Amino acid sequence: MLGATEKLGAAMRWLWRPVGLQAALLRAGGAGFRTEARTASGSPREAGELQGELDRFGGVSVHLARHRALHGLDAAAFRRLLQAAIKRWRSEGRVAAWLHIPILQSHFIAPAASLGFCFHHAESHSSTLTLWLGEGPSRLPGYATHQVGVAGAVFDDSTRKVLVVQDRNKLKNMWKFPGGLSEPGEDIGDTAVREVFEETGVKSEFRSLLSIRQQHRNPEAFGKSDMYLICRLQPRSFTINFCQQECLKCEWMDLEKLAKTENTTPITSRVARLLLYGHREGFDKIDLSMEELPAVYTGLFYKLYHRGLPESYRTTMGVD
Amino acid sequence: MLGATEKLGAAMRWLWRPVGLQAALLRAGGAGFRTEARTASGSPREAGELQGELDRFGGVSVHLARHRALHGLDAAAFRRLLQAAIKRWRSEGRVAAWLHIPILQSHFIAPAASLGFCFHHAESHSSTLTLWLGEGPSRLPGYATHQVGVAGAVFDDSTRKVLVVQDRNKLKNMWKFPGGLSEPGEDIGDTAVREVFEETGVKSEFRSLLSIRQQHRNPEAFGKSDMYLICRLQPRSFTINFCQQECLKCEWMDLEKLAKTENTTPITSRVARLLLYGHREGFDKIDLSMEELPAVYTGLFYKLYHRGLPESYRTTMGVD
Repeated sequence: MLGATEKLGAAMRWLWRPVGLQAALLRAGGAGFRTEARTASGSPREAGELQGELDRFGGVSVHLARHRALHGLDAAAFRRLLQAAIKRWRSEGRVAAWLHIPILQSHFIAPAASLGFCFHHAESHSSTLTLWLGEGPSRLPGYATHQVGVAGAVFDDSTRKVLVVQDRNKLKNMWKFPGGLSEPGEDIGDTAVREVFEETGVKSEFRSLLSIRQQHRNPEAFGKSDMYLICRLQPRSFTINFCQQECLKCEWMDLEKLAKTENTTPITSRVARLLLYGHREGFDKIDLSMEELPAVYTGLFYKLYHRGLPESYRTTMGVD
Repeated sequence: MLGATEKLGAAMRWLWRPVGLQAALLRAGGAGFRTEARTASGSPREAGELQGELDRFGGVSVHLARHRALHGLDAAAFRRLLQAAIKRWRSEGRVAAWLHIPILQSHFIAPAASLGFCFHHAESHSSTLTLWLGEGPSRLPGYATHQVGVAGAVFDDSTRKVLVVQDRNKLKNMWKFPGGLSEPGEDIGDTAVREVFEETGVKSEFRSLLSIRQQHRNPEAFGKSDMYLICRLQPRSFTINFCQQECLKCEWMDLEKLAKTENTTPITSRVARLLLYGHREGFDKIDLSMEELPAVYTGLFYKLYHRGLPESYRTTMGVD
């Protein structure tokens, strides 16, 4: 199957011209609830048709919140309108239909489902349903598949001690690095620093990314996948004031002791050995350093992590 | 704010005992639609109350599909039942309520929303709504926040050539590594190999992880975040048969040429330089190697990526 970008790219290529033209015409007329010529059914109160907004990928989107005339409709009347719209969209060669439904208008969901729509995603106070109208299997991109968790390995090079905790309410009380889930839109380094402070009271600064774990069908992620990253942090304070609700124990532990203890997780043990190696041979041996760059199309910034390069390889080449 | 594991841990600690007991009792009686003593309202057809299943975190879940008696109810009657249940759950000290609603029963969503519920997530043919009943701000974990995309840098050490493509329908036709979105449950290495084959017809094998990019508010990810990883792949075939629908061009390009060209993205340029460094100094200088390990609690396996360690550091320590 194709990745989203490819899917969209493919759909866009296929329908670029016709949609480009029709989109221009439609936008000129404006999207909304048109009350003219063709009607979706004989019933006068349903005169007019469900108008959507075209996207550049050959799909059509209907934002129910923008269609005041829909507010009075019952589920059956909405179903007739939508059925007529789907027929029209198919004849116009649309590849997909999207319905954006405010949570208080959710009585329109079941009728849409009875016409083949299903949930693409929903969050907070609205849901989005899709119906694939193109040829072959759906090429619509899926929704987010991963939660992201980050742990912080706060290591003090001068004392060779690293900050570790034992979670409460675990079957086995094993030493691990403090951490937790990223907030929406939060960079991994910020998550590590925040979680370390919330759990232990220790302030720190992001230094590098050390390790990435990918796990699927995670029960704590509602069956979705989990990306868990461990960052190396530099301590900025040393006094421990740990969260009694989350942690059973918290201490600065000698790194070699952590690397050798059996009372820890495989990941913690490996990262402890990585840190020991970095402590002795130089952190450039284990770090993935971070740099911030502008995205080519959106203009937004992103953060890139990879092994550091010797000076001779850093000279600017390509679009930097 | 706390990460999900911590949130759940905290909630679990707080309500572990009472919930543990009540859960046992309730499960003995079975969850469902109880028709005895207390009724949710005066109306006889609504006799009985909405029973949920307790979770180990102090929350209560109602799977509407399992409540046959609900099928006949209209939105107003369901709202009265739910309102009574919420009152009862609060008095019992529940921290949260979850509603799992089949898409064809979505007429129950708006009444639930009018009582404070909102969407936690929805996919395919069902939605899940939540209402926080505990003290302070909600400590419920969020849903997946990231989509994961993977590109494959297929490098032939013997010819120093790397496989690159130019996407169709891009504003700028820049050389990049083939790649695309991971399918649900797919490991990053498998995504890289699959996408490279789908786009270019070249077969390859996963070798290592080279780079990770994190980007937020990605329009192509429906406003969610994006984790984009680049893997180093070893070619297993060399004949190019690229996807005309997705690619404009595809070729084996000399690595130094790619590292120097201006007609590429910052990430591709950096990874090209990384590969050049690895080609000359050894890939152990740039690779994040992968190992598969069993998860401590779930027993599921996960994949861990980090810098390789010298033999002397690999000796087993900790729970390996």
